[in-house]
Amino acid sequence: MAATNHFMELALAEARSAGKRGEVPIGAVLVLDNTIIAKAGNRTRELNDVTAHAEIVAIRLACEELGQERLTGADLYVTLEPCTMCAAAISFARIRRLYYGAEDPKGGAVDNGVRFYNQTTCHHAPEVYSGIGETASAGILRDFFQAKRSED
Amino acid sequence: MAATNHFMELALAEARSAGKRGEVPIGAVLVLDNTIIAKAGNRTRELNDVTAHAEIVAIRLACEELGQERLTGADLYVTLEPCTMCAAAISFARIRRLYYGAEDPKGGAVDNGVRFYNQTTCHHAPEVYSGIGETASAGILRDFFQAKRSED
Repeated sequence: MAATNHFMELALAEARSAGKRGEVPIGAVLVLDNTIIAKAGNRTRELNDVTAHAEIVAIRLACEELGQERLTGADLYVTLEPCTMCAAAISFARIRRLYYGAEDPKGGAVDNGVRFYNQTTCHHAPEVYSGIGETASAGILRDFFQAKRSED
Repeated sequence: MAATNHFMELALAEARSAGKRGEVPIGAVLVLDNTIIAKAGNRTRELNDVTAHAEIVAIRLACEELGQERLTGADLYVTLEPCTMCAAAISFARIRRLYYGAEDPKGGAVDNGVRFYNQTTCHHAPEVYSGIGETASAGILRDFFQAKRSED
């Protein structure tokens, strides 16, 4: 649990950095054999890329670094419940365990929405652990959107 | 219908090119105001990137080209029913119309699987037209997998 908290803390730091860049503050860390193989924050605005969610950026970085298409045995720490796009990408990458912070009833696809890992068109499901760093993750998002609304 | 067939023919050509590169043969073309803004085939193996499905590659190319995060008003032609990841990315990119060739009961997410565009966690759904180029699309995929099996 100590390592789990440590990796989620790093994901939260990625989320905070993303927020400072004007991105929706979500962060992700990929770990293989207790070693960080990628970390990333949301970069959709910076890259003009709707697919550049923290999870996808981290998966692409790790695959590039390792020179392989799949991340079998890797664990992903992400501050918010993955969306439909990311939940599927996590499955395609054969990620072993998914740790996420806050639930996302509006856009999540793991314990909300399409619950992709319970569907017959999902051909690999990670083990899922939720709630680690939940309060911090939700707080970072709430503060970001409150600040945005007061700017408008 | 003539233009529709034309754009799907180009998507089929992208699929065939992908197959020649050893990729699962799926192709996509993005059209805005009757002009092609991106075309792509599947590149997952070449790029070691599980997210590099034809649709995602085309969306990224078009957004980069246009310098914008969304493709409002654009139409996507793709040879196979989009998967869960791509269906969500198409929604995020605000694509107006989705034309796809063959259905994919095993991995599709539009008229099969999670039927993402019918879910409450989907916040933008394109108009969907299916079956254009269906026979050719399914044939390209069938030939590819038959050839692969005979190699094994």
